[in-house]
Parts: sequence; C-alpha cells; structure tokens
Amino acid sequence: MPTLYHHPLSAASRYARLVLAEYGEEPTLVQKSPWQWDEQLLAINPAARLPVLVDDNELVVAGAPVIAEYLFETRGTRFGEDEPLLPPGPAERAEVRRLVSWFGDKMQAEVTGHFVHEKVHKREMKVSEGGGPPDSTALRAARSNIRYHLRYIGYLVERRNWLAGQEISLADLAAAAEISSADYLGEVPWEEDERAREWYTRIKSRLSFRPILADVIRGAPPASHYTNLDF
Amino acid sequence: MPTLYHHPLSAASRYARLVLAEYGEEPTLVQKSPWQWDEQLLAINPAARLPVLVDDNELVVAGAPVIAEYLFETRGTRFGEDEPLLPPGPAERAEVRRLVSWFGDKMQAEVTGHFVHEKVHKREMKVSEGGGPPDSTALRAARSNIRYHLRYIGYLVERRNWLAGQEISLADLAAAAEISSADYLGEVPWEEDERAREWYTRIKSRLSFRPILADVIRGAPPASHYTNLDF
Repeated sequence: MPTLYHHPLSAASRYARLVLAEYGEEPTLVQKSPWQWDEQLLAINPAARLPVLVDDNELVVAGAPVIAEYLFETRGTRFGEDEPLLPPGPAERAEVRRLVSWFGDKMQAEVTGHFVHEKVHKREMKVSEGGGPPDSTALRAARSNIRYHLRYIGYLVERRNWLAGQEISLADLAAAAEISSADYLGEVPWEEDERAREWYTRIKSRLSFRPILADVIRGAPPASHYTNLDF
Repeated sequence: MPTLYHHPLSAASRYARLVLAEYGEEPTLVQKSPWQWDEQLLAINPAARLPVLVDDNELVVAGAPVIAEYLFETRGTRFGEDEPLLPPGPAERAEVRRLVSWFGDKMQAEVTGHFVHEKVHKREMKVSEGGGPPDSTALRAARSNIRYHLRYIGYLVERRNWLAGQEISLADLAAAAEISSADYLGEVPWEEDERAREWYTRIKSRLSFRPILADVIRGAPPASHYTNLDF
C-alpha cells in the first residue's frame, strides 16, 4: 500500500489523493504540518513541500503534478473507466497540463493558498512561526479572485463538458482539489456561476471524492453544505 | 516555423528556447514584457504568462514545462543524440519532473525571479507599474539563496553525471535556464561550488545554448564572462 504524506486542506495533497482514488489506491495517509521544520519530510523531499508519495516499491515521488503523471504512467487504466486521465494526443495533453498548472499554481497562489494559510495554518502555528489571526487583506483578495476562477470553470465546461475536453481528466481533479479546499472553509460563492456549480456537483459525486468529503480538521469543522451533493 | 512569445531574461522562456534548440527548431521569437497588459498575449494565454509557443499547426502551448513535454512528445529523437530528454521509466521521469519543478518553481521564486524583476523589469517599468530602483532586501535574499541551489546542483552531478541521471535531460535544461539568467546579471557566485561550475561549462558548450548566449538586453549588457566557455 502506498503512503502519502499530506495535509488535509492542502489542495495539492487533495489533488494527489483524488488521482490515487481514481486508480483505486487507498494510501496510508501521514499528516504533516507544512510550516514546520520536519526531518522526516526533508529526508524524502528536500523541497519540504507536500504531498510526497512513497510507492509500494519504496520509490519517492514528490509534488502533486509529478505524482499524477507517475500514477498515470504506472497504474494504466482505471477500474470501470474507458478514458485515460491524460488523453493520448500531444495537443490534448498540453491543454490538460496547462489547466493543471492554472489551478495548481495560479489559483493556488491567488485564492486557495491564502484561504488555507490564513484560516487554517495560522490557527495552528505558534506566534514565532507566524501564527495569529487571519490577515483580512489576503482574505479579501482571495474572495475577489475566486469569482474569476469560478467563471473560468463555467466558461470551459460550457464549451467542453469537462474542463479540458469531452472526458474527465487530471485537469478536473486538480481544479476540484483547489475548489474543495475553499469549499471546506465556506469560501466558494456558488451563486457566481451556475455552470461551475453543476461541474462541481458531477465531480463531487464520484467515488474518488468520498475520502476528501470525510475530512474534518480539529477546531475547524467544514462548512455545513461541504458534504452535501445537492448544495 | 514555430513562434515563441518570450522575454530574453525570463528563465522559463529560456527553458523553452533550450528545448526547442535541442530539437533543432529555430523559432520566430516575439518579445513581450510580462508586466504589461497585453491583449495579444492574453488572447493566446489567459494566464498572461511567458513563454507561449504557437506551433506550425497554429496550436498554442502555454507554459515552459508544458511546452517541454509537448516538444518531447511531438519531436521525438534529437539529431545526433541517442538518449531522450525524458527517460522512458516512470521513476526516472518522476525524478526529471521533480527537478524541473525544483528549478522552475522553487529556484525561480527564491532566486532568479528576484534578480530579473529587481535588476531588469523594474528598470523598464513605469513608476505606475511598480518600476524603480532594485529592492536591496530582495537582492540580498536571492544572493543568499543561490548558494544553496549551486550546492544542490553540485551534490546531484557528483552522484549522477547530469542532474537527474547519467544522461542529460529536461532537468538540466530547466536548471541551466535559471542559472543562465542569473549569470547574465553577474549574480552567480561560481566559487561556491566547483562541481556546479563544471556542469554548467558542459551545458553551456552545447549548440543549443548559443542563442541564449547571444542575448543582449538594451541598457543592461551581460556580465563580462557571460559568453565565455572557460569562465
């Protein structure tokens, strides 16, 4: 059984968990605090970032997009699914990878990273580590930026069914990971885009989403609609 | 002939240029200023980030790591070279991709991005765009951080010949792109690690590096040793 070093509200960790679940893997989860100096984490990933996968053969794979490509290359087809999470054509793959970066890098930097850092990490960090109350400027920026990302999701799924094409792909899982972290914290203004809400309903109903929906952070319970499939 | 939208000192753009050159492509280069609102750039890449490749078939590919994987998938083998830039095994690929992210994301954020922004972009930006003299705190941080990255390069090549293994790979090109931007600005403390210097001498001598070494930015000529293969 593979092991995943993760943090429950880290969107990158959630992306890796979703891809693992799509391939029918139920990893041993080891929770880490990304802001703490951690010899165990540094030993397996000198970048000290989450997530890190240790596969059955002891191979260490660091970083969510790298883990996703690795699982695609080693797990092959998914049970009961015909379409691969990364399509065969180079043009289609480039579009999937562009969107994985859009959500995992851009939305993370503009939206999700702020929400998780300000509302979750800073509650658990000591003052000497930078802990304290949320910075309202950062939260305001994230609340403004998320509307733009929701509309972009709506724009894409209106034209394509799923984000990168007619079939679900790594792009949908990367985007859903970001959205789900914000949604846990009650920070997704669903009224902004009905098409984005419809897309999220579809992906949230998948079997692979259940472990994500079962997450509960100590002292920060999820928003009331978080697990509701008809939100 | 493909077209690459780029900025000469953008390390991500240099990474794409190096991969293109390894595949024998001589793209039409269109220079963009990443800090300016640019309708043409936004139309081809809504993330408004460089580089963007427009291939011969008009396909748009956005982002250096995505462009590199796309070129690998569409160009096949390189002229006169037996080994692929991305090795066939999933474990070896994961290591290449981890290092592409290490240099393209982490070193970019900790080192190269500061140097290029403070010493190049801010000279060309209007005051209203954030232009002005370099921020000495940012430069000091970058000068401290680059030593750590040089030692990491040295550590890797001592064990592996090239960064990710016995053969040159995308990881070396991504790292060399970052180092070369800093080196143009005279910001690489080569005395820090002899092994890193030896690695850079090898990669700098490649045919694919010549266009990078010919770059000259208006008002900011390269450091005197920049084009010297025996620096």
